Amino acid sequence: MDISLQILLFVAVLILLAKTLGGLGARTGLPVVLGELLAGVILGPTLLNVWRFSWFSSPAAVAGRLPLSLAAVVKVFAQLGVVVLMFLAGLDTDVEMMRKAVGPAFWAACGGVILPFVGGASVARAVGLGWREAVFVGAILTATSVSITAQTLMTMNQLRSKVGSTILGAAVIDDVLGLTVLSVVIAAEWRAAAPGPSGWTGVGATVVRMVLFLLFAFLLGPRLVRLGFKLARHLYGPHIAVTVSLALAFIFAFLAEYLGGMAAITGSYLAGLFIASTPAHGQVIQDVRSLTNSFFGPLFFASVGLEVNAREVAGRWGLFVLLLAVAVLGKVFGCGLGAWLKGLRGRESLLLGVGMIPRGEVELITASIGWSAGLISSPVYSVVVVLVLATTLIAPISLHVFFPREPFIAPADSPVAAELPKRPVDP
Amino acid sequence: MDISLQILLFVAVLILLAKTLGGLGARTGLPVVLGELLAGVILGPTLLNVWRFSWFSSPAAVAGRLPLSLAAVVKVFAQLGVVVLMFLAGLDTDVEMMRKAVGPAFWAACGGVILPFVGGASVARAVGLGWREAVFVGAILTATSVSITAQTLMTMNQLRSKVGSTILGAAVIDDVLGLTVLSVVIAAEWRAAAPGPSGWTGVGATVVRMVLFLLFAFLLGPRLVRLGFKLARHLYGPHIAVTVSLALAFIFAFLAEYLGGMAAITGSYLAGLFIASTPAHGQVIQDVRSLTNSFFGPLFFASVGLEVNAREVAGRWGLFVLLLAVAVLGKVFGCGLGAWLKGLRGRESLLLGVGMIPRGEVELITASIGWSAGLISSPVYSVVVVLVLATTLIAPISLHVFFPREPFIAPADSPVAAELPKRPVDP
Repeated sequence: MDISLQILLFVAVLILLAKTLGGLGARTGLPVVLGELLAGVILGPTLLNVWRFSWFSSPAAVAGRLPLSLAAVVKVFAQLGVVVLMFLAGLDTDVEMMRKAVGPAFWAACGGVILPFVGGASVARAVGLGWREAVFVGAILTATSVSITAQTLMTMNQLRSKVGSTILGAAVIDDVLGLTVLSVVIAAEWRAAAPGPSGWTGVGATVVRMVLFLLFAFLLGPRLVRLGFKLARHLYGPHIAVTVSLALAFIFAFLAEYLGGMAAITGSYLAGLFIASTPAHGQVIQDVRSLTNSFFGPLFFASVGLEVNAREVAGRWGLFVLLLAVAVLGKVFGCGLGAWLKGLRGRESLLLGVGMIPRGEVELITASIGWSAGLISSPVYSVVVVLVLATTLIAPISLHVFFPREPFIAPADSPVAAELPKRPVDP
Repeated sequence: MDISLQILLFVAVLILLAKTLGGLGARTGLPVVLGELLAGVILGPTLLNVWRFSWFSSPAAVAGRLPLSLAAVVKVFAQLGVVVLMFLAGLDTDVEMMRKAVGPAFWAACGGVILPFVGGASVARAVGLGWREAVFVGAILTATSVSITAQTLMTMNQLRSKVGSTILGAAVIDDVLGLTVLSVVIAAEWRAAAPGPSGWTGVGATVVRMVLFLLFAFLLGPRLVRLGFKLARHLYGPHIAVTVSLALAFIFAFLAEYLGGMAAITGSYLAGLFIASTPAHGQVIQDVRSLTNSFFGPLFFASVGLEVNAREVAGRWGLFVLLLAVAVLGKVFGCGLGAWLKGLRGRESLLLGVGMIPRGEVELITASIGWSAGLISSPVYSVVVVLVLATTLIAPISLHVFFPREPFIAPADSPVAAELPKRPVDP
């Protein structure tokens, strides 16, 4: 079957299942995003493995005779989707609140990098892995991906709270710190493999690239956004503001990864942050929200489950449970402690730590780099990949348990009703 | 460069250029869609040929070592985009008006199939092509693709007018008729190549498939839509209505092509038509409009230019001009005459004929089938492909010239202002 025909059916099945599970979850009070994650697990290799079905598989593509496979296209959609999702989180951030949160966010990020790094390396060493592999496992566990937390906080109306702002700030700083740790580790490995100055030059280059991008983003970013909107005012056409905003988000995401060597989502988040303080913000957020809720959101969240086969943990439960404990507790206590020392209350610090649990595409990319470079073995790679799935499921459930839910019931006819999750009137 | 990184930059460049040209066009009063089409021509092989640039090319993909290339992914996005666009056109259709227009639409479609078929075959024969090739060229010219017209009419606020409704009805009927002609021609060719009953069995199968799909669509479609919305009411979560609608549109599009052998856009158009008469219609149309205007629309319209190299006509200008004349005049007079005989006024009939000019993905698919089957030669194939580009550019310009524009200026702060093209206050 033609790939453009396959994608129609696949996207229809995926978003229907994601929204059905998400909607049923929301009925019982669980976050919508959890159902969307589960839709991916059900369709993915763990349970049904839809890529196996003749309707969704492309034997010609697998054999290399076609230029693309459905699974590869869905992955690109999902990667674009997470960029749009983090752009929305940026748009939805309370900039003033965020500014106040920089201190706690910095220390939370530091704690959340150090504890999982040390813990992960120690556990890996304890179960008998070599030093090189153990250190790399530690480096992998430092990465946080807050797209799931951000979406959960958004549907819970908590993104603009003090803790919500601190989590998002800490996630950006975590990206910087985690990447530094990772490149230091890789440089050290290279140095061990082939002694010489090249390894440390690599670390230097990484740091210079990050600094360049961050300078660009914070110094020129807001100006670029203002310029974009100023030029857009001369254009006539529907939805100009959101189109320009999306283009800016994509450019920032591109530059974050291409120029800064950071995660693309960090770039789109920053673009959202800059646009959040412009007058066009209201219209843009409304349009981007319908884009993500109806299309990109379900696609991204389901894609996590679509790419991971949870069965691969079989036989390695010990390592999995230990690393999961480090991944969860390392962030909860590492981030929590950092925030608590900078004046957040105990409960707020705990919530922040929980919000930082999810790993995502950053961890998957890091792990696959380590795997292709021969730094970690296949069994360890599988375990680390399933960790991503586990942490993404743990976070929304825990947030739901720890966060006091505001019993918000929007009137059915208000424009807000479409934006906010409705709670069942008879619970 | 990674494909997910390339797509970020490419989509940003594409939608910025499309919206800039579209917006500048709208300033001078031209339809937005024209600028978006031109963006594709500029980026495509005719002028810049961005696929050549190292940032957008994937040598590994071309060599077959990667499962996908950027160009292939963009094409899938565009194909999904045109399905969403025609879904929007269905949502935006005045169902009552459409019902009254069935008679004129049917005769317009008949005229618009017969004249280009006879004219195309005659011209091809006259320039010295063989009978088989000439008949196939005629069959190719019968296909209309109204996505460009629909979008132009929408931005001109004319989609729900009498002529707008007739055009959309005629497009659906044209799809049925054109496909019948095409399958009869292919069956006849096969019969000529290998005498036996199999060719005519193919025609029978094609007709049965179309009838099955159309029966399904018109008998079960509205029920399925009502059932979908009824079930969706039990779910909680943001943008449920638009998500369910999109999934229905994708399923109808899939079935139209998979079950009915028709164009996928005919299926999504019908889904839009059925949803247009439900209460959820208002919210859905608003969300789908932001989805298409900001993302899928520019991607699809630009993709027409991205796939066509207008330079390939060089040296075959005679054939090109003759076929273009048949393609344009065949629809203008064929459709116009049919509508005029059924009571439309002369001016309305002319507008209808102009609206039916654009060929699109249906023609491209048909031509590529004929080319791979050896029914048409390479030079003729190139000319036919560039015809698609020419007709898509002619239609919006002509519509703009012939349609009386309503001088609509939305107040800057009204919610409608974002939806409708603003006209410059000082023209």
